[in-house]
Amino acid sequence: MKKTTSLSELGITDDISKAFFRPIQSAAPPSPSKRRTKISVIGAGNVGMAIAQTILTQDLVDELALVDAKPDKLRGEMLDLQHAAAFLPRTRIFADTDYAITASSDLCIITAGARQIPGESRLDLLQRNLDLFRIIVPPLAKYSPEALLLVVSNPVDVLTYIAWKLSGFPPNRVIGSGTNLDSSRFRFLLADHLEVNAQDVQAYMVGEHGDSSVALWSSISVGGVPVLGSLERHQIEYEEGVLEKIRKAVVESAYEVIQLKGYTSWAIGYSVASLARSLLRDQRRIHPVSLLAKGFHGIDEGKEVFLSLPAQLGRGGVLGVASVHLTEEEAKRLRCSADTLWEIQQKLGI
Amino acid sequence: MKKTTSLSELGITDDISKAFFRPIQSAAPPSPSKRRTKISVIGAGNVGMAIAQTILTQDLVDELALVDAKPDKLRGEMLDLQHAAAFLPRTRIFADTDYAITASSDLCIITAGARQIPGESRLDLLQRNLDLFRIIVPPLAKYSPEALLLVVSNPVDVLTYIAWKLSGFPPNRVIGSGTNLDSSRFRFLLADHLEVNAQDVQAYMVGEHGDSSVALWSSISVGGVPVLGSLERHQIEYEEGVLEKIRKAVVESAYEVIQLKGYTSWAIGYSVASLARSLLRDQRRIHPVSLLAKGFHGIDEGKEVFLSLPAQLGRGGVLGVASVHLTEEEAKRLRCSADTLWEIQQKLGI
Amino acid sequence: MKKTTSLSELGITDDISKAFFRPIQSAAPPSPSKRRTKISVIGAGNVGMAIAQTILTQDLVDELALVDAKPDKLRGEMLDLQHAAAFLPRTRIFADTDYAITASSDLCIITAGARQIPGESRLDLLQRNLDLFRIIVPPLAKYSPEALLLVVSNPVDVLTYIAWKLSGFPPNRVIGSGTNLDSSRFRFLLADHLEVNAQDVQAYMVGEHGDSSVALWSSISVGGVPVLGSLERHQIEYEEGVLEKIRKAVVESAYEVIQLKGYTSWAIGYSVASLARSLLRDQRRIHPVSLLAKGFHGIDEGKEVFLSLPAQLGRGGVLGVASVHLTEEEAKRLRCSADTLWEIQQKLGI
Amino acid sequence: MKKTTSLSELGITDDISKAFFRPIQSAAPPSPSKRRTKISVIGAGNVGMAIAQTILTQDLVDELALVDAKPDKLRGEMLDLQHAAAFLPRTRIFADTDYAITASSDLCIITAGARQIPGESRLDLLQRNLDLFRIIVPPLAKYSPEALLLVVSNPVDVLTYIAWKLSGFPPNRVIGSGTNLDSSRFRFLLADHLEVNAQDVQAYMVGEHGDSSVALWSSISVGGVPVLGSLERHQIEYEEGVLEKIRKAVVESAYEVIQLKGYTSWAIGYSVASLARSLLRDQRRIHPVSLLAKGFHGIDEGKEVFLSLPAQLGRGGVLGVASVHLTEEEAKRLRCSADTLWEIQQKLGI
Repeated sequence: MKKTTSLSELGITDDISKAFFRPIQSAAPPSPSKRRTKISVIGAGNVGMAIAQTILTQDLVDELALVDAKPDKLRGEMLDLQHAAAFLPRTRIFADTDYAITASSDLCIITAGARQIPGESRLDLLQRNLDLFRIIVPPLAKYSPEALLLVVSNPVDVLTYIAWKLSGFPPNRVIGSGTNLDSSRFRFLLADHLEVNAQDVQAYMVGEHGDSSVALWSSISVGGVPVLGSLERHQIEYEEGVLEKIRKAVVESAYEVIQLKGYTSWAIGYSVASLARSLLRDQRRIHPVSLLAKGFHGIDEGKEVFLSLPAQLGRGGVLGVASVHLTEEEAKRLRCSADTLWEIQQKLGI
Repeated sequence: MKKTTSLSELGITDDISKAFFRPIQSAAPPSPSKRRTKISVIGAGNVGMAIAQTILTQDLVDELALVDAKPDKLRGEMLDLQHAAAFLPRTRIFADTDYAITASSDLCIITAGARQIPGESRLDLLQRNLDLFRIIVPPLAKYSPEALLLVVSNPVDVLTYIAWKLSGFPPNRVIGSGTNLDSSRFRFLLADHLEVNAQDVQAYMVGEHGDSSVALWSSISVGGVPVLGSLERHQIEYEEGVLEKIRKAVVESAYEVIQLKGYTSWAIGYSVASLARSLLRDQRRIHPVSLLAKGFHGIDEGKEVFLSLPAQLGRGGVLGVASVHLTEEEAKRLRCSADTLWEIQQKLGI
Repeated sequence: MKKTTSLSELGITDDISKAFFRPIQSAAPPSPSKRRTKISVIGAGNVGMAIAQTILTQDLVDELALVDAKPDKLRGEMLDLQHAAAFLPRTRIFADTDYAITASSDLCIITAGARQIPGESRLDLLQRNLDLFRIIVPPLAKYSPEALLLVVSNPVDVLTYIAWKLSGFPPNRVIGSGTNLDSSRFRFLLADHLEVNAQDVQAYMVGEHGDSSVALWSSISVGGVPVLGSLERHQIEYEEGVLEKIRKAVVESAYEVIQLKGYTSWAIGYSVASLARSLLRDQRRIHPVSLLAKGFHGIDEGKEVFLSLPAQLGRGGVLGVASVHLTEEEAKRLRCSADTLWEIQQKLGI
Repeated sequence: MKKTTSLSELGITDDISKAFFRPIQSAAPPSPSKRRTKISVIGAGNVGMAIAQTILTQDLVDELALVDAKPDKLRGEMLDLQHAAAFLPRTRIFADTDYAITASSDLCIITAGARQIPGESRLDLLQRNLDLFRIIVPPLAKYSPEALLLVVSNPVDVLTYIAWKLSGFPPNRVIGSGTNLDSSRFRFLLADHLEVNAQDVQAYMVGEHGDSSVALWSSISVGGVPVLGSLERHQIEYEEGVLEKIRKAVVESAYEVIQLKGYTSWAIGYSVASLARSLLRDQRRIHPVSLLAKGFHGIDEGKEVFLSLPAQLGRGGVLGVASVHLTEEEAKRLRCSADTLWEIQQKLGI
């Protein structure tokens, strides 16, 4: 696939370039160890492109590689980003159907996934996604053996497990976007109600991404003030049912966007760009992401499942898991999700 | 249209908010003159949303209002942006089918437009767009009488004229995105070939946006070094034909993206966000945009047409037009475009 | 005081400007209501300039005015900032000994203050600062009757009270930088020890800025996990003495910097820029700042003192005070500071 | 030198950290090749600290190391920057008198220099600076053999030559800040007069930094419009004398700042941060910097002197020198500077 309609293709020679710049004498080539920061995004659909564009706007990398199976769509997206060159810091943007362009990535973000065919069982769909990941993950691991892997495709928890298995990477280098976005939705809903900045609201959704996610009520604080304690002190009554209503509103808000506009894109783009920043710039910030969860909160050591827990992220991937307090009820729901995922994974034959 | 699924709708009272914050004594309300910076985007399609999201990522405003005729799509897009609250500085995001939400905008960006029906003549299409602008522009002008108007819809030059007429605004407050993006594509193509940063390449496309645009060869410089002069000094031959080939490559690159991915979005998003920044932050930067061009480069004083020329943009809109040198051939093409546009406008009955 | 060595002073006429730009026809002047965002900084010493430069780098305003009693130093600082124009977004920078240049500021930041003369009593020093503020505050209030006032000069709590009295502004528009920086030092110390990002550490110092500040142990959380509760769960023992040691380390770290480099500048610059952003961009973020504290945590309604409490800041200044929980011991120390400040203020005769 | 007053020094154990984070199972350490981006600044005076702080605010690196001979001042500056941690993205900041902390830097910026003793000859001063660089440069080269070297100390052209010789680095990896700031002052002066954004003004000062610098009149353009040509077309007369007056105003503006405030700091801070960005983020932007100039514009191949010319900067250092057109008079002045510098260098015995 050609890089772009370039002046060379128009028969315009490189003489013009030579006319413009002359090297200084005895110049030495840059050392090969001086690598640039590079992110590869697999899948140029709405989610992949929102991620790629947000990473570009936020100036996170020196090189951005896009891979997709559809060469036309892919080339159109690459050109559309490149045409903004005059409005952005310089980032080299590549696109190809061949994974070779992802070589030496610091971070590979997988957004590709199979869509459900009407009537298809959840397991059959997962099997097709497994087949897809067999095409995607091994070349990524081959071309960038030191990279971090970030899985965005759904069902994210199982697919992160699959990416981990197929890559052969240590588990701290394989992460799923998990409930990072669910937690932002949770924080927005609370911030909107309290008329505060969502960045001052601490609130985690953990566990399985989707319907079974667990809202950690004890973790909610606004500007450092724990919410539940504050309500108690002010003798404001709330019932268990209210909290569950809020959790459901968070879960449903994703479905609502899909129903209204057909897909989600912007928020997942910002969410993943935020993870990319913490990882590549070694920010050591805490995000709830899908990680190898066995041994945490009573999850069976033998069950190799990925679930979201608040984790410290840095250049080495998952640096540690925060010791959040879960009620026994919350921990039980986590273990229940672990059992379900483990069961599914057993059926997949990987 | 409801604002969002909010906690209030879940029957959660405002007591929680009162429990969190108490006013200090004798606090006075903020003065009404302390307005926030506000942009409204009309049209929540691919172009409008790429613009809105880029403006949001670049933290240009305090309030962002989206208007579209389709309430579902509109609400889906608003929620999708709002869900990213935890990853962004606080910006209030509104969306409604009612133009009342655009009240007191500093800048209104119009991206809505009718699409060509197969077999429809260019004039019929324009007539339909005129009808659409009759719905859009008067309420914008009514709700934000001090705003700047920025037209992105195509054909941009005629529609900017129409917006000017329908708004009753002085011409310095009505601008078309014009050849701002064409010029970025021009700069990218040259920068890519020379392996330099596109921000160091000066190059203007002016005139009519689209096939008849004029590339100002004499304006091209790289890092302050004029290109044509440099080529001459190095006795590098180039032919008129080569320059025309490059201009065509720029024009065709837009069609290429549309053909490949179905529409353009990212580059126009960055291009318009760049204009918004220069306007609202009074940057006084020079951009080629569509403006009332009568009297420039020999365009007949009687012909009220909008064409792109390099203009200095600031809080007052178009502050001045740069005195670029046009060859007689270039000026002739500009006047020819002016004639064509004027003729069309006469037929529209506005 | 002349604006700068300008080309006009060299006898170079404005013809060159006219040669460059021509207005479009029928252009109207921008509406007077379209004000730019403006910050004035009073005092061009190390603190004032670190604040001004950080505000400039972070691109927070369209206009920046500097006032100082020393015209040479002032002009030198202005020119030094202006010379960076090619590396920054465009911001207009003014400097003068005359307060007229602060006209129509959105925010006035006061960093000027008298220095202690050896042997001088604390009260005599305060009296001299009162005299200084009698020169500074009334013209600021006159030229910018709608502005927010932010006092950085020390002793910050009393001087914020003085600024409030002299300005005649409602109390929500008069703020002292208070313990905002102490809290950042607190968060850094904890983050450095835990190897986490300080932005994930919640921890407040409140009360009187300086030796008597109060560390809110119950407010400390890391990534949403309350620290004290976590230590208890892990049966890690800590003694009251340890917590007090940490508080003292925070207080002493300011003295340490002054002893080592002679003054503090960078951290207070970032701290105040952060407040400026929350205020002017209506971020509604929560910062511990000095505000009219009567009536909070049992402080006598009759005692008009300013003390730091976590407050929500926005375009209207202090929007509300967060209902943090104080132990009885902590509240007592707060009231004790209130008594001391009130006593001092009574002696000042304002 | 101890790192900082840390909780460990207060006898607070690491148990608290272990209580907070638990590693996931089978986690592997990050690969050693995953280096962070690191800048070292040598000299913690006004210039060095303005550079360090601007680099920090603009979030250019993951690690920042400061070296100075005065341990107290150094530690004070480091703490002052660290205390802002809660307001900035996470950057690790180190400071020591030992060059070991600069290990594996990507860029080393030298701002240290000897000050003139009254009555001292220029050559004696230079000799003392040479002695100083013999202490600074070899350890930098030893600890960071792949780094880029950026010299800011004055006289910058000779000292860049000295740094090159002492480092043994290829010439493309040794750069002097040269006339990058002079050019910004030039652009500001023109932009201020024309009321345009300085980023739209192209204008180079080249040659020797200081009194003998050469203003390239033919390079001046505003928004892509060449100034001299435009003046000619509008028949605006200007005399050679006027141009020389403007050049002198640029040169004198540096002296003016020094005379008024005692030193320059902010503008050089922004100027060097801008170079650091182009270098480390491989921006390939064009800056006038001091580089090995032999062979350019008729400078004798045998004269190894460093002079400023517009150069393309990227991860490899100087990527090429732009072929700007010099009049014979301008080239002669450049060669004259080259002769003077070469003569001085011969006397230094390096």
